[in-house]
Amino acid sequence: MSIRGFGVHTAMWAMEWNRAAAEFAILEAVKYDIDFLEITMLDPQAVDAAHTRAQLEASNVACVTSLGLPLDKLPTNDPQAALDFLKSALDVSSAMGARAMSGVLYGGIGQRTGERPTETEYDATARVVEKAAAYARARGMDFGLEAVNRYENHLINTADQAVRMCERVGAENIFVHLDTYHMNIEEKGLANGILRAREHLRYIHLSASDRGTPGMDTIQWDEVFGALAAIGFKGGMAMESFITVPSQIASALSVWRDVAPSREEVLTDGLGFLKMKARQYGLI
Amino acid sequence: MSIRGFGVHTAMWAMEWNRAAAEFAILEAVKYDIDFLEITMLDPQAVDAAHTRAQLEASNVACVTSLGLPLDKLPTNDPQAALDFLKSALDVSSAMGARAMSGVLYGGIGQRTGERPTETEYDATARVVEKAAAYARARGMDFGLEAVNRYENHLINTADQAVRMCERVGAENIFVHLDTYHMNIEEKGLANGILRAREHLRYIHLSASDRGTPGMDTIQWDEVFGALAAIGFKGGMAMESFITVPSQIASALSVWRDVAPSREEVLTDGLGFLKMKARQYGLI
Amino acid sequence: MSIRGFGVHTAMWAMEWNRAAAEFAILEAVKYDIDFLEITMLDPQAVDAAHTRAQLEASNVACVTSLGLPLDKLPTNDPQAALDFLKSALDVSSAMGARAMSGVLYGGIGQRTGERPTETEYDATARVVEKAAAYARARGMDFGLEAVNRYENHLINTADQAVRMCERVGAENIFVHLDTYHMNIEEKGLANGILRAREHLRYIHLSASDRGTPGMDTIQWDEVFGALAAIGFKGGMAMESFITVPSQIASALSVWRDVAPSREEVLTDGLGFLKMKARQYGLI
Amino acid sequence: MSIRGFGVHTAMWAMEWNRAAAEFAILEAVKYDIDFLEITMLDPQAVDAAHTRAQLEASNVACVTSLGLPLDKLPTNDPQAALDFLKSALDVSSAMGARAMSGVLYGGIGQRTGERPTETEYDATARVVEKAAAYARARGMDFGLEAVNRYENHLINTADQAVRMCERVGAENIFVHLDTYHMNIEEKGLANGILRAREHLRYIHLSASDRGTPGMDTIQWDEVFGALAAIGFKGGMAMESFITVPSQIASALSVWRDVAPSREEVLTDGLGFLKMKARQYGLI
Repeated sequence: MSIRGFGVHTAMWAMEWNRAAAEFAILEAVKYDIDFLEITMLDPQAVDAAHTRAQLEASNVACVTSLGLPLDKLPTNDPQAALDFLKSALDVSSAMGARAMSGVLYGGIGQRTGERPTETEYDATARVVEKAAAYARARGMDFGLEAVNRYENHLINTADQAVRMCERVGAENIFVHLDTYHMNIEEKGLANGILRAREHLRYIHLSASDRGTPGMDTIQWDEVFGALAAIGFKGGMAMESFITVPSQIASALSVWRDVAPSREEVLTDGLGFLKMKARQYGLI
Repeated sequence: MSIRGFGVHTAMWAMEWNRAAAEFAILEAVKYDIDFLEITMLDPQAVDAAHTRAQLEASNVACVTSLGLPLDKLPTNDPQAALDFLKSALDVSSAMGARAMSGVLYGGIGQRTGERPTETEYDATARVVEKAAAYARARGMDFGLEAVNRYENHLINTADQAVRMCERVGAENIFVHLDTYHMNIEEKGLANGILRAREHLRYIHLSASDRGTPGMDTIQWDEVFGALAAIGFKGGMAMESFITVPSQIASALSVWRDVAPSREEVLTDGLGFLKMKARQYGLI
Repeated sequence: MSIRGFGVHTAMWAMEWNRAAAEFAILEAVKYDIDFLEITMLDPQAVDAAHTRAQLEASNVACVTSLGLPLDKLPTNDPQAALDFLKSALDVSSAMGARAMSGVLYGGIGQRTGERPTETEYDATARVVEKAAAYARARGMDFGLEAVNRYENHLINTADQAVRMCERVGAENIFVHLDTYHMNIEEKGLANGILRAREHLRYIHLSASDRGTPGMDTIQWDEVFGALAAIGFKGGMAMESFITVPSQIASALSVWRDVAPSREEVLTDGLGFLKMKARQYGLI
Repeated sequence: MSIRGFGVHTAMWAMEWNRAAAEFAILEAVKYDIDFLEITMLDPQAVDAAHTRAQLEASNVACVTSLGLPLDKLPTNDPQAALDFLKSALDVSSAMGARAMSGVLYGGIGQRTGERPTETEYDATARVVEKAAAYARARGMDFGLEAVNRYENHLINTADQAVRMCERVGAENIFVHLDTYHMNIEEKGLANGILRAREHLRYIHLSASDRGTPGMDTIQWDEVFGALAAIGFKGGMAMESFITVPSQIASALSVWRDVAPSREEVLTDGLGFLKMKARQYGLI
């Protein structure tokens, strides 16, 4: 049961996933004809999984969960704590009915040593990822690795690096998760990232180049959708925009100004644009 | 005497600007038909200005200097030290025969408080910029403010923010300096940044989206050159690629892998591509 | 009183402009929030101008008229007949309340000698255009020259050729009319056409590359809207799509298949996309 | 033995393929590192095949031949004459050592009835194509069908139509031949045409949107090369530019002005650009 269709990252409505946030977001998902929500978990333990699950099921909205590890609980500095954090988050995700957990599951947003990544770091990372992916698999969940830009992490910036980690771990339920915002900075051509990931690619963030409204930005969307069509992409397409970012998160994401004039613009113009392009290239 | 034509940032050859670096870079400038060098000064005091000037003049190559302030000498934390640093750098630049100094002259690469910028920060910044620009003017030099992306600084990320600082200071020799690498992340359409800066824009970094080889990246160069043509741009166009980055600088610039296979690719394919596009839009 | 805002070419609803067509199109113009209609006149004498005018005024919809000359009434083969045809069409246009008449007013769709255009042809053309423009001016109307692609006419294919004809005639009410469909074939960069026309450009057809749905095609719309913003464009933007083409017209326009699945797709997805881009670049 | 690598259409040097033209073109092919020539045959009987073959072999340059049928010898108006013409051209092509013959082999440039294509026309066309392809196969040659724009022919304008004709005939040596110039007018996204043709696509014309210099035009080359990479394209890539067009051909091709300032610009800037993009996407 993999994730499919069009989703939206919950940063659209709230960064803290409490009952009020869940109820608002799911209402909007129905309103805007969204197939699934990507629920980002800043603190998995604070989530009321049963409530979310009930709300999602009542509205027939699917979900994926996402996170980045705390910077003091990384495979490279505290592998056991990293694994424990991932397991715990997978338990919550599973309780919510998530089909997959994805994101910077291999490390943290802000994880940079100031040096190029080393084999020692990749080794430590692969060991934790392997165990966490097995734990996910036992729960019937997929486990995704999101390539993020050079400023957010120094281990996996490109599709190529994500594929290499997937192939190294070799688990069936591991997949590559790309994001147009990061690809726009890291790939030598947007199609190149998607083609490199190819069959490993099961999830993509459709994010504007400034994390505002897709279609009113610098991304070449024809290249993105053309390449997705080319590889027969069947995974989830999640629009992500950081328009609702509390200050404690703003720093990690480097959001210093409003990236769109309103949530409504992103959900009407942005999502409408993405669906039009998906139709143009036969993806929906 | 403003800067014009095609230049290349000296990161192409060396990040430390010593005699060997100067001789190598100037030789290459002649070989590749480059009008000017942008000499980046990690440590202005370490530069042998007389040697550089003699070499440049002998080869008929112009120069611009550039820098970012040390993070402990910012207008927002030590305005006097910031001003002193800028004055000293302007003295060196003037001794080299530079027509302009530009870059993150208003702050540092890595300057972020974790919060949105405040009016207090902009006030402090404007006071130092105003004095430094006056000091530059007395030496017949222009003084440029480069908008950089959200990860590198939180004060001036967009053309709009750069223009507002220019207009606030109001000095004739202050100008906006844009960079396609940063614009690709920050502007809602590449043309929008250039059109917002319009008559303030006197210098542009033509940088690939991954800081590798321009033309083999995700930038929509037709939009860039079309907009430059539209505003009647007459300033300097400097190709910037971080292919030679020692580890102490790699961290500030977040360079974790080789962004191009070779210097030669950037100087032949990349510069050749940029010049072709400049011809297409009547800029050269 | 020049034409402004967003319009739609009446080929969207009907190629023959009779009472039924007028009533349907004006109803749709109101429904889709369209500022003006471009009423194409296959046979100006068949138009019920008073009816159209009343309907337009009642709905507060403006209009522009357009046509191409019959191939046996061209400035190059029968200048008097060409001028008479234009005058008559201007009379009808004026009676409808049109602010401008535009299109291939200088010749016919299909006008090609098989040779490069000659000065003799341009001379003959300019003489008729000059007189017709004067006639339009006396009626308070503007007179537009549309550059069309090499297959449709051999005299004015590029913005440069249209500007040269405007400048040669030199009348204040003459303007350049560009069309993205034709520019996509003829210009060396979409911005180049718009920049060449600059102050002469008062009207533009926003047409998909296949004359179907704008935004689901090969046009680089960011270049178009960025360049329009750059020149401070204030004229009319008319979406044109040939989805309703009776067979006697299909041949002149070379429409051999349905270029869009439905009128509704063009009016919702296509027009919605164009308006989003216009907002992105500050044009509306 | 299929065609591979980079080629150039002989319109670059001469439209009439006589001994002088052959010697000049082959000299240039060596100079510009071109793998094969596409020799267009206006009059197959006028070609000195033995001379061309000897020259090509001596310089290690491969060849493909191309043509469009005379308008009085079409499958739809004189099927026997069409077949005879194709057979005769295949004999000449085989004598030149051509690995394939391609182009508007199914009809003529200018073949339009003024109506949408009918099944009767497609039937007549398929019958001739089937026989001609079999004749080619017996000579070890492939037989290509080039989709051209609506103005040049009304039967096969899109990749979809070309694929349907290939699948209808069903011969192994039949392939689809696309051309970026035509796709830019006919396809709903450049990638869509290439993806539709996919395994049938064995040859592509890399032509500028105005038939001038590729890279200084409106084509989105990243989409083209990204899609070629996506389908694992292994066929021939032929740059085509109509800079040398005698007046008797200009009419069929609608060339009314110089589409590039010089042959050298096309062969250096244009071919250099295409090869850079092919490297970027891993095609060479």
